[in-house]
Amino acid sequence: MTNRNYTIGDYLLDRLAQSGIQHLFGVPGDYNLQFLDHVISHPAISWVGCANELNAAYAADGYARCKSAAALLTTFGVGELSAINGIAGSYAEYVPVIHIAAAPRQQSQQKGERMHHTLGDGDFRHFLRMAAEVTAVSASLSVDNATAEIDRVVSAALRLRRPVYLFLPLDVAAAPTDDRPSPLAMPDPWCDEASLNAFIAAATALLDRAGTVSLLADFLAHRFGASAALQRWLERVPLPHSTLLMGKGTLNEQHPCFIGTYAGGGSSESVRSRIEDADVIISVGVLFVDTITAGFSHRIPAEKNIDIQPTFARVGHQTFPAVPMLKAIDALETITAAQAARWNPGFITPPALPSPQAKNRLDQREFWLQIQHFIRPGDIIVAEQGTSCFGAAMLTLPQGCQFIAQPLWGSIGYTLPAALGAKTASPDRRVILLIGDGSLQLTVQELGSIIRNELSMVVFVLNNQGYTVERAIHGPKQRYNDIAAWNWTQLPMALGCDEDKVFIKQTRTPDQLAQVLADIEGEHRLSFIEVVLPKMDIPDLLHTISQSIEMRNTVQ
Amino acid sequence: MTNRNYTIGDYLLDRLAQSGIQHLFGVPGDYNLQFLDHVISHPAISWVGCANELNAAYAADGYARCKSAAALLTTFGVGELSAINGIAGSYAEYVPVIHIAAAPRQQSQQKGERMHHTLGDGDFRHFLRMAAEVTAVSASLSVDNATAEIDRVVSAALRLRRPVYLFLPLDVAAAPTDDRPSPLAMPDPWCDEASLNAFIAAATALLDRAGTVSLLADFLAHRFGASAALQRWLERVPLPHSTLLMGKGTLNEQHPCFIGTYAGGGSSESVRSRIEDADVIISVGVLFVDTITAGFSHRIPAEKNIDIQPTFARVGHQTFPAVPMLKAIDALETITAAQAARWNPGFITPPALPSPQAKNRLDQREFWLQIQHFIRPGDIIVAEQGTSCFGAAMLTLPQGCQFIAQPLWGSIGYTLPAALGAKTASPDRRVILLIGDGSLQLTVQELGSIIRNELSMVVFVLNNQGYTVERAIHGPKQRYNDIAAWNWTQLPMALGCDEDKVFIKQTRTPDQLAQVLADIEGEHRLSFIEVVLPKMDIPDLLHTISQSIEMRNTVQ
Repeated sequence: MTNRNYTIGDYLLDRLAQSGIQHLFGVPGDYNLQFLDHVISHPAISWVGCANELNAAYAADGYARCKSAAALLTTFGVGELSAINGIAGSYAEYVPVIHIAAAPRQQSQQKGERMHHTLGDGDFRHFLRMAAEVTAVSASLSVDNATAEIDRVVSAALRLRRPVYLFLPLDVAAAPTDDRPSPLAMPDPWCDEASLNAFIAAATALLDRAGTVSLLADFLAHRFGASAALQRWLERVPLPHSTLLMGKGTLNEQHPCFIGTYAGGGSSESVRSRIEDADVIISVGVLFVDTITAGFSHRIPAEKNIDIQPTFARVGHQTFPAVPMLKAIDALETITAAQAARWNPGFITPPALPSPQAKNRLDQREFWLQIQHFIRPGDIIVAEQGTSCFGAAMLTLPQGCQFIAQPLWGSIGYTLPAALGAKTASPDRRVILLIGDGSLQLTVQELGSIIRNELSMVVFVLNNQGYTVERAIHGPKQRYNDIAAWNWTQLPMALGCDEDKVFIKQTRTPDQLAQVLADIEGEHRLSFIEVVLPKMDIPDLLHTISQSIEMRNTVQ
Repeated sequence: MTNRNYTIGDYLLDRLAQSGIQHLFGVPGDYNLQFLDHVISHPAISWVGCANELNAAYAADGYARCKSAAALLTTFGVGELSAINGIAGSYAEYVPVIHIAAAPRQQSQQKGERMHHTLGDGDFRHFLRMAAEVTAVSASLSVDNATAEIDRVVSAALRLRRPVYLFLPLDVAAAPTDDRPSPLAMPDPWCDEASLNAFIAAATALLDRAGTVSLLADFLAHRFGASAALQRWLERVPLPHSTLLMGKGTLNEQHPCFIGTYAGGGSSESVRSRIEDADVIISVGVLFVDTITAGFSHRIPAEKNIDIQPTFARVGHQTFPAVPMLKAIDALETITAAQAARWNPGFITPPALPSPQAKNRLDQREFWLQIQHFIRPGDIIVAEQGTSCFGAAMLTLPQGCQFIAQPLWGSIGYTLPAALGAKTASPDRRVILLIGDGSLQLTVQELGSIIRNELSMVVFVLNNQGYTVERAIHGPKQRYNDIAAWNWTQLPMALGCDEDKVFIKQTRTPDQLAQVLADIEGEHRLSFIEVVLPKMDIPDLLHTISQSIEMRNTVQ
C-alpha cells in the first residue's frame, strides 16, 4: 500500500536530511518495512542495510564522527536491543546517533497484545526504559506529539552531541501530517556574561604568574566543534600542546609545538614533563579515563589547571558555570596572545617511534614504523581498541587526518562497522582500518557490506592469534584468550567479493609489508592485508597501560 | 596471581555445576579474566568461548533448552549489553540462563571512577537496571551477601524457568568464603488444596457434558517439565491432540492421535476442526502469540476451555490460583481416564506435506518432503524464524525429537549459536540446523566456533537471496530485503575448517539434494549444505502467517 500523502515518517526523514544526515543505517524488520518504503523513495536519504543491528549502530557511530550526526533504524525489541551496546558507546563517547525504533501499531500496544518481538507480557515500554539509560533524551511518538517531539529530540542530539531515541509505532510513521520541517532552531549555548568575566579575571591572574604554559585538548573539543578555534589560537600563540589518545586528531600534529600524545604516566618523559611540569596547564574538552592515562596516573593539580568543558570552565578550584567552550577558548586566546612570545617553546620533535628489536622480523615496532610513513594527509584512521589503537597512539598524524577509536567504551569489534560508516560519510577520503584478528571476528559480517557497497578502504588485520590485549592484562597463555584460527586471506571471497575487486596479501616480513604498502598506493580497490605478528608482542604503550589495569584489578 | 583459597567465584561455579550446568558460555574481557582462571581450573565446568557476546547468549539459550539451565559470562557494560537481546529472548520464551556480568572492583564503583566500559558518568548501575527489564530476578553481589544471593538467584532461574542476572565485581569473585554450597532447596510449587479441589470439581462438571475433547499443549508444558506427564496421560487417554509451533516436540508426534501442528486459522482444516470444534478444549502451557496463530485467529472460547498454566488453572471463566501444572495434569488424567474410550478418535493421520508444484525443481515443498524422510528419532532440529521455521512446522517429528525455534521473540540469527549450544549440551544427538542465508549472516562468526570445537552437526543454508520472510510480509522486490551475496561453500574453510573435516555441498535440484541427504547418513564430520531455493518461494504456512501480519500492520 503506497500512501501518497506526506506522513510523519516523511517529516522525520526531512528533518534528518536537514540536519546534515544523508544515510540511514539499519536492518529491516517486520515493524519498519512500510517506513522503509518512504526511506527508499526519499530524495536525500540513502538506505545502508547492514548485516546485523549492532554493526549498524557501530556504523552509524563511525558516520556521526565524520558528519553532524547519524541515524539508525531498527525494529522493536530484537533489533533495538541488538543495537543497544553500540548506542551506549555513542553515549559514553559523545556521538550523536538518532536511533529510530520502529514499533507495532499503537492499537496493539494499548491492547497489550502478545505480539512477536515483545516479552509476551503486554508491556511495550521495557525497551524504551532501557534506551533511556544510554541516550540523552527519548520520545514515544504519537500522531499528536510526533513533529514537535522529533524536533525536540533531533535538536537535542545535535546540541548535546549524544545519542537519542525515537519510539515510532508503524501507524504513527504512516499517519499524514500538515506540518513541514522549518529550519531547526539551534540557539548558541547559553553564556552567563558575569560568569565569563569572572572566568577571564581568574584565568588572567593565574596566567600572569606563569613562566610556562601547556595545552592539553581532547575529544570533547572535537565533538563540540572547537578544533578550528583551537588551531587558530595555537597558530597565534604557539604553546606546547598535546592530546590524549581519545582526542587524537583534534589538533594538527604537524604543528611545530605539538609534542606527541599524552598518556599520563604512560607518556614518554618529554611529553609528560612538558605537559605536567608547566606552571599552568590549560585543558580543553578532556575527560580522564583509565585506559588513556595508564590508570589515572596523570598529574594535573587543580591549582595550576584551567579546565574548559563544553558548558562550563574551571580555574583552580573555582567553577564558572554557563561558560561555553568556544567563548572560553576565545577569551584564552586574547589573554595569551599578549604574551605569546614568552611561552613559545620553539620547535619540538614528538618522540620517535621505538626501533625494531630485531632485524628482518615483522613485529609491532616494525609495523608501526612502516605505517607512520604510509599514512598521508587527510586519511581517516580507524584503530581498534587493543594493540591497534595503542600502537597507532604513537603515530604522528599528517595534517588533516581524522583518528577514530573508542578508548572509553572499548567495545571490541567496533571499528570494522565504524570504518564502513566513516567511508560512507567521507567517500573521497582514504579510510585505513587497523584491527586485530580477535576483534574482527566479533563483527566480521560487515566486511560483506563493505564488499557489496564496493567501498575501497584499506584493512589491516593484525593477526596475533587471539586476544593479545587481554593476554597483556591477564592470562597470557590461558586458552580463554585463544580464538578460532581463520584463513583470513580467503575471507573476502567467501563474503562475496570477486577476486578482481580486492587486493589481498598476507605479510610475514618487513620487506613483504613494505612491498604491500607500496602496492596499495596504486590501488583503487578494497585492500585486505593480513599482517602476521608475534602472538605475545605488544606496543610499548599498551604494555604500560595493561600493567596498570591488571594492577588495579588485582585483589590485594 | 593464583588465589588458592576457596572463593565466592568457586562457590558460584560449584552452584552452577550442582544445578546441572557443565558449560559456561561467554567472551573474555578485562573484568572477568581472573574469574576465568577459576573457570578453567574447575573440575566440572568447561569454558566455551564464543566469537561475540550476543552469540554466546544465544548459545546459552540453546543449551538451556536441552538441559536444566545454562550460564553465560560477559564483561561489564560492553559485553553484557551485546548479550542483552539474547537474554531478552530467553525471558520471553522461558529459558533459564544465568547471566554473570563481571564488573570492576567495588572500590572503583564507590569512587565513581571513569573506568573503561562505563558511560563515564560514575554510575555503575545503568546496566543492572537494564538487565532488570529482561530477567526474572537479579542481584548485585557483595562479599557479605554473595553466597545467599547466588542461591536465591540460581534457584529462581530453575524454578521460574527464566533468565537471571548476577552483577559480580571482580574483587567479590576473588574474595575467600567459608560457605560451601549445600543442596539447593527446590520446594515443589505451592499448591492450594482447596483451589485444586475446586478446579477438579469444575473440570469434572465441564468434561461430563463433553461429547468430544481435544488437547492442545505448548511450550510452557515443555519448560515446566510436563512432557512426560502429558505423554503418560495420552497413552492412557488417547485424546486427539496437537501443539503449536512454539511447543513443537513437546508431544510425541508418532502417537496415533497426534493430529498435526495447530496454527489457529492458519491450520489445515482437519487440525483446526479437531481442536476448535471439540466440546471441550484442554490447553496446557499455551500462550497465544501472533506468529503461531496467524495473527490471533485461534478460536478457543473460554466457555469450553480448560486452561492449565504453570502455577494456576482456569475452567471456563473461573480461575483457580496456586494449582501447579503437574497437579492439574494428574487430576485431569484421573478425571478423563474413566471415560477414555468415549473420546478416543481412533487413528489419525496428520496432514500430508503438500506436493511439489513442478517436477525436477528444488523448491520449498520438495525440500521439506525430503527433510521429512531425512529426520530420525532423537534428532534435535533447530529451525530459524522465517522460511525454515514455518517450513519445519509442517513436519511430523519422529519419536524423541527436540524442536528448537523462537517464534515469540523472533530474533533472526538466533539459531546458529543456539545449535552450537544444543550440540554442546547433547553431544551424542544429531543436531540439524535449518537457517536462511539472510539470518546466517547475522551471527555467522559462530560457525568458526563450531568448526574449532569440531562439532559434527548438519547445517542446511536455505539460500533464497535475502530476507524472504520479510519479502513475504512487505516489499517483495524492495532492495532493503536484498543482502550481500556470499559464496557459502567457501565459508567453512575461510573460518578455519580443514577441507577434510567438513562435508560441503551445494544443491540445486531434487536429485542433488536426495544424493546429499543419503551421503550425510555416512558422515561423522560437520555437514554444510547450501540449498538453492527460489527467491520468492515460501512455505504455505508462512504465506498465511505473513499475510496476517501485513494485514495487521497495514494502516487503514
